Amino acid sequence: MSDAAHPFDLAVRLAAAGEGAYAGRTHPAYANQVGPFGGVIAATLLNAALSHPARLGDPLALTVNYAAPIADGDFRVSAVPARSNRSTQHWSMALLRDDEVLTTATAVFAQRRDTWTATDAGFPQVPDWTALERTAPAKVAAWTSRYSLRFARGGDLTATPAQENADSTSLVWVQDDPPRPLDFLSLAAICDVFYPRIFIRRPVFVPAGTVSMTVYFHADAALLAAQGDAPVLGVARASHFGKGYHDQVAEIWSRDGLLLATSHQIVYFKE
Amino acid sequence: MSDAAHPFDLAVRLAAAGEGAYAGRTHPAYANQVGPFGGVIAATLLNAALSHPARLGDPLALTVNYAAPIADGDFRVSAVPARSNRSTQHWSMALLRDDEVLTTATAVFAQRRDTWTATDAGFPQVPDWTALERTAPAKVAAWTSRYSLRFARGGDLTATPAQENADSTSLVWVQDDPPRPLDFLSLAAICDVFYPRIFIRRPVFVPAGTVSMTVYFHADAALLAAQGDAPVLGVARASHFGKGYHDQVAEIWSRDGLLLATSHQIVYFKE
Repeated sequence: MSDAAHPFDLAVRLAAAGEGAYAGRTHPAYANQVGPFGGVIAATLLNAALSHPARLGDPLALTVNYAAPIADGDFRVSAVPARSNRSTQHWSMALLRDDEVLTTATAVFAQRRDTWTATDAGFPQVPDWTALERTAPAKVAAWTSRYSLRFARGGDLTATPAQENADSTSLVWVQDDPPRPLDFLSLAAICDVFYPRIFIRRPVFVPAGTVSMTVYFHADAALLAAQGDAPVLGVARASHFGKGYHDQVAEIWSRDGLLLATSHQIVYFKE
Repeated sequence: MSDAAHPFDLAVRLAAAGEGAYAGRTHPAYANQVGPFGGVIAATLLNAALSHPARLGDPLALTVNYAAPIADGDFRVSAVPARSNRSTQHWSMALLRDDEVLTTATAVFAQRRDTWTATDAGFPQVPDWTALERTAPAKVAAWTSRYSLRFARGGDLTATPAQENADSTSLVWVQDDPPRPLDFLSLAAICDVFYPRIFIRRPVFVPAGTVSMTVYFHADAALLAAQGDAPVLGVARASHFGKGYHDQVAEIWSRDGLLLATSHQIVYFKE
């Protein structure tokens, strides 16, 4: 890597603009078909709370509600500590342009301490990163070039003839391109790296987009720092599709089998 | 049922108190060890948005952040429509006392329309409601008497000698006591009916409590109305325990095998 800032850091960068107020700007490297990649929007809102001088502890939970498309250009982010306790802190955030709310979010930060520990979810059977080929980025969405995605399952969006799959599970190794040390911001973004499950399940391209996403961080800052820029394994599936929406349940694992985050979203789809 | 209001309706009742402002009061029938049952707090916040004259559509997503204990007594709830689109509406809510924020929440409402539909999650192998006995309520938490809980698995909190279980899965039939027709409010509350997974997994009673819960409603108003007061099946499990927190993944199924809601939470535990 050169000395220049990583494009992800440029995309989530905020300038202080008063108490709990920040100025940001969309970055072309993480553009989606309309507005920025949702993962970068989530990371930008988290960054506002993370950068706030009153912040205590590490991110534990993040919920982002994608209320409206964000056209390219400048925006403002507000972050308000709604409540600070001894070991937890609750945040309300919003992304605005011209006083119009485009995204809302809440976050919980926590002081993490060693306790009894167990992982009941199972690390999936999957070929190692080195045994798989990188999938070509989607030309219609610039942000897909900013991740090296190596699918072990559920990544073929161009099956011909289109045939319904039995489920919507994807298994995919994910690494920032260029590689970048993992932190809370990039992990939040990676939780949104999965294509809408409806594209995998049917597979048919219909208009679709995330309406709300929640991330639970199981890793603390030290565990994330220990990952360096190693690829992480993403697992995603849906429970139910119907009445215009489907959910998505996702896990992000370290290469050595530690559960770094779990994430959920509800996704709009047409027809 | 008599003509008197159901205790759940009394517990989530709000009186209009200005634009987007509501007055409520804790109800002893749904008391937890400290403050009200979290499910009733969630339903009360949802009720503020649901009761708002600007409300469009049915609840689709709800996130509730339990920022501080709510001592018995009066409280205020605010509900602000942050953004209204053609088919979705985004809400920010808070529960306050003396201008102190005790709970924050966001919700997404949506106009649901018929689309392609599939359920990929599987309805579990479980004995019917009629084949199981009701579990005795927990004396220390009044709200547990307001649900008829019939556990098929993962309900024995008093295993002696205490022995770690292989996982934290619970399968439990749930019905309001007295029975009450299912709606969005009671379904939101039922998503929090599960005991902290740490109690099942170890099983050891340590201080524990929900920090944040998200509910995705897969059922629309018509499907909920069709349930009447029939019991629903709850399934809950954790993915990971560590550094003072564990998650919970839950599903709520109708008796005839329709997925009504999925829910997630992050739970604080000590030691």
